[in-house]
Amino acid sequence: MKTLEITYKDEYAIVQMNRGKVNAINAEMVSEMREIFKSIAANDQVKGVILSGQPHYFSAGLDLIELFQYDKNQISDFFSAFGSLYLELVQFEKPFISAITGYSPAGGCVLAVASDNRYMADGEKYVIGLNEVAVNIQISQNLTEVYAFWMGDGLASKYILEGKLLTGKEAVSAGLVDELVPFEDVLGRAEKQMRLYMKADQKIWRNTKAKIRKHLLEKLDVNGKNSLKEAAELWWKPEIRSKMKAYVESFSSKKK
Amino acid sequence: MKTLEITYKDEYAIVQMNRGKVNAINAEMVSEMREIFKSIAANDQVKGVILSGQPHYFSAGLDLIELFQYDKNQISDFFSAFGSLYLELVQFEKPFISAITGYSPAGGCVLAVASDNRYMADGEKYVIGLNEVAVNIQISQNLTEVYAFWMGDGLASKYILEGKLLTGKEAVSAGLVDELVPFEDVLGRAEKQMRLYMKADQKIWRNTKAKIRKHLLEKLDVNGKNSLKEAAELWWKPEIRSKMKAYVESFSSKKK
Amino acid sequence: MKTLEITYKDEYAIVQMNRGKVNAINAEMVSEMREIFKSIAANDQVKGVILSGQPHYFSAGLDLIELFQYDKNQISDFFSAFGSLYLELVQFEKPFISAITGYSPAGGCVLAVASDNRYMADGEKYVIGLNEVAVNIQISQNLTEVYAFWMGDGLASKYILEGKLLTGKEAVSAGLVDELVPFEDVLGRAEKQMRLYMKADQKIWRNTKAKIRKHLLEKLDVNGKNSLKEAAELWWKPEIRSKMKAYVESFSSKKK
Repeated sequence: MKTLEITYKDEYAIVQMNRGKVNAINAEMVSEMREIFKSIAANDQVKGVILSGQPHYFSAGLDLIELFQYDKNQISDFFSAFGSLYLELVQFEKPFISAITGYSPAGGCVLAVASDNRYMADGEKYVIGLNEVAVNIQISQNLTEVYAFWMGDGLASKYILEGKLLTGKEAVSAGLVDELVPFEDVLGRAEKQMRLYMKADQKIWRNTKAKIRKHLLEKLDVNGKNSLKEAAELWWKPEIRSKMKAYVESFSSKKK
Repeated sequence: MKTLEITYKDEYAIVQMNRGKVNAINAEMVSEMREIFKSIAANDQVKGVILSGQPHYFSAGLDLIELFQYDKNQISDFFSAFGSLYLELVQFEKPFISAITGYSPAGGCVLAVASDNRYMADGEKYVIGLNEVAVNIQISQNLTEVYAFWMGDGLASKYILEGKLLTGKEAVSAGLVDELVPFEDVLGRAEKQMRLYMKADQKIWRNTKAKIRKHLLEKLDVNGKNSLKEAAELWWKPEIRSKMKAYVESFSSKKK
Repeated sequence: MKTLEITYKDEYAIVQMNRGKVNAINAEMVSEMREIFKSIAANDQVKGVILSGQPHYFSAGLDLIELFQYDKNQISDFFSAFGSLYLELVQFEKPFISAITGYSPAGGCVLAVASDNRYMADGEKYVIGLNEVAVNIQISQNLTEVYAFWMGDGLASKYILEGKLLTGKEAVSAGLVDELVPFEDVLGRAEKQMRLYMKADQKIWRNTKAKIRKHLLEKLDVNGKNSLKEAAELWWKPEIRSKMKAYVESFSSKKK
């Protein structure tokens, strides 16, 4: 795979996002991620997945520079595929743990909130959160549900409405992140938790996860096409398009 | 308006409750508040509302001294109107922030819990909470829903069942209040948050609020007449009436 | 009663579990507990219940040594009765407080989570939690609902999936326990809270509890036979049976 590196351990897999320095998410990465999670779901030998990132960047979120070039069909397809990926991750039945190796805003956070545990690198610059409101992207109902699942309705309301990026400490306090660990130990901490899960009877473990997520799954619109349709539409609103252009240009110039 | 003072800023309005020293809520105040919020909801020039109070008193809650004189029809009308006001506040689509300038029990808290953010004056005497059980008033289902929204079911159960008034610190810890600030900075803090909200695309902001409150609104009985019917009935239970009388008398004598 | 000791105070009852040193729960204890709670529910003179345990042990949970000897019918009957007891406790309309005098894992925690308040002995060895996953027992949907009620979905997910036993401090932080008090004050603290509840109008108090638990009760499968059916079935899975055997043997040898 071009954007992912997969390592198989005895009982579980490590999926490392591997697209440049910041792991910006584009159509290809979404497609490969859907493929690998489907393959693992169907493989009885692989009993769990850890999703990991690059040093300092779990994922910087959607690749807005690439997405800004997409035409209407491409945007519509992208949001539909990304909405489907998210749903597939939330519905994934086996243990799924995020090793958040750094910065993880918006789209990066979307992947992480679907997992059962989130261990995050301890560092001031490593922020995480659904900051869609602040970057003029329409968050979907499906995303607000999972945020509320982890942090409760009250904090989810507060943080989503202000488009907040949380520091590690804020994220732990809010229930969004399980633990902060030194950067070099993030993957190890995730693997330790995975080995703990491997000790359980896997049928009981999966039954239990299904029970815990029952009401969450009932609340989700499981048609991926609907999930981010509104976001795809608002993407083309002229005021938003021009703000996005300014954002992309400022970001492109920073990169130089 | 007799009980409210309205200030229009560039993009938002400040509604200051202005009924005596303690802002006790009576039929007239409820009526005026419903009117102003309806007018703001319909006014495209006003994009948000801050609700504020008097120094040291956001609102001491229902004006029990006046309500004690109401006859059956008046009580029934009052609870119906107050229940409707509360529902209109919870359903208000634009940014709505409470600047809690002091003491805010029962009815004062009812107004505040409907808003998106609550900034509260830091001071030992400034308590807040739905203490209905402790003052022999029947809380409505609609009120328990919003309390649980902000603090989770567990804390809502604990605090409602004991009729607890929370200190500022307890309220922040419970998620009922966002931040404590020095008394003189409460309104300024609310305005700072409002200006942050004004930076967002307002269509996206309101869509987002609708998503976050979707399940809450689904749980509410949106017929204001039902909402506090039970409270109006229990109001006339003889044991409760005599306790209320003693309370009103003790409170009236304290005032002298 | 053989396994319970009942003390009637002026307005409420104290039910002390009284089955050996550790209060392991067997069919007889479940039957007696269902009987006493039904009797109290029907008795207008008794307005609340405190459930207490033995010094250092609230209840060590199900009596696995005895249950390991049960045949298929007995296990099926036991889980059905225990599921019904749990439902009856969650639906109990009067004030119900747990005085957690010590260790309280799995089945001990099941009883405690049904109550309105939990006061727990402060001590390192006194852990509490639904650790079913860790001991190869299938937790029921009904149990996950109440855990999520007290601690929110996020923490409930985290702790249930790892079969976590929480220390007192962790339990308070999670909202599972209200307060830690010195061992000798646990019952006194519970009685103090009960006396506070007795000051309220009892009709208002019970109405209020019904409102707070409305959605929780709607989520429960109130047919006790269904409630723990899955647990009874998985009980006989060969791998689980053999792990249970090893556990029972290790536990039996420790006791000597």
